[in-house]
Amino acid sequence: MKPVEKISENKRYTAVSVGKLSELMQHSLIHPVNKRIIEGKVFLKEPTGATGTEISFQSLPPHTELSYFHRHRKNEETYIFLHGTGLYQVDDDCFAVSEGSVVRVAPDGIRGINNTSDEPLIYIVVQSKENSLEEYSTADGERIAHNPQW
Amino acid sequence: MKPVEKISENKRYTAVSVGKLSELMQHSLIHPVNKRIIEGKVFLKEPTGATGTEISFQSLPPHTELSYFHRHRKNEETYIFLHGTGLYQVDDDCFAVSEGSVVRVAPDGIRGINNTSDEPLIYIVVQSKENSLEEYSTADGERIAHNPQW
Repeated sequence: MKPVEKISENKRYTAVSVGKLSELMQHSLIHPVNKRIIEGKVFLKEPTGATGTEISFQSLPPHTELSYFHRHRKNEETYIFLHGTGLYQVDDDCFAVSEGSVVRVAPDGIRGINNTSDEPLIYIVVQSKENSLEEYSTADGERIAHNPQW
Repeated sequence: MKPVEKISENKRYTAVSVGKLSELMQHSLIHPVNKRIIEGKVFLKEPTGATGTEISFQSLPPHTELSYFHRHRKNEETYIFLHGTGLYQVDDDCFAVSEGSVVRVAPDGIRGINNTSDEPLIYIVVQSKENSLEEYSTADGERIAHNPQW
């Protein structure tokens, strides 16, 4: 199992690296409930210290489907597809996804993924609590004069 | 300005596409405060109907730095680097980022980015409310028996 590499860290931030996206299969984890090894998946909440999201990378091998459908209790998920092509199903709707596809699923949507292609299907999953975001972007952000160190 | 393409939608999910990551420069937006055009950036909260995150894609051209440093009031940000190499600064710490780097910044961290390379620096920003996530992953998820439509 390849570890997530720590780049830099202090109280205000943590920077890590999962390595090249084409090498995600070097990451694996043990599922906390059924104790099976999941290859090609890496979770980032713990290594980055994130408090508003659980973000994961996943590489699903060619001609492989996720072994289960699932839903959530409180959390929305957004799937961001970076490489490959496949089929995404929510409830009884099934549609094609590829590089640049983004799917937002409400907690009770029953979701599954099938990599129908000859290449790995590489994607990011962002889990966050439904309805948790208040102000955002420019309403929450503030520009600050600051000296670049580069 | 290239629109975000709607793939599929119902009450439980929305699927969109921003297109190939190498073609993000076809997206642009008008900054709501200073009314300047920002090229190569696309926000996803509104097109996907997300309620827990504001996710954006950005392509920063070669040898270009973001024109400002900024911080947030309530929101944590996670930057996910997909392509290119550059420098990331939080407060007075500056470090290198490249494909697979992930940086989580607390609201009050003062952040800026410089693309020091000859290629576009392509990254995703995930904005979420600090400390908003409660249970996550297997503690929030539930496997469901369901019929694949593929």
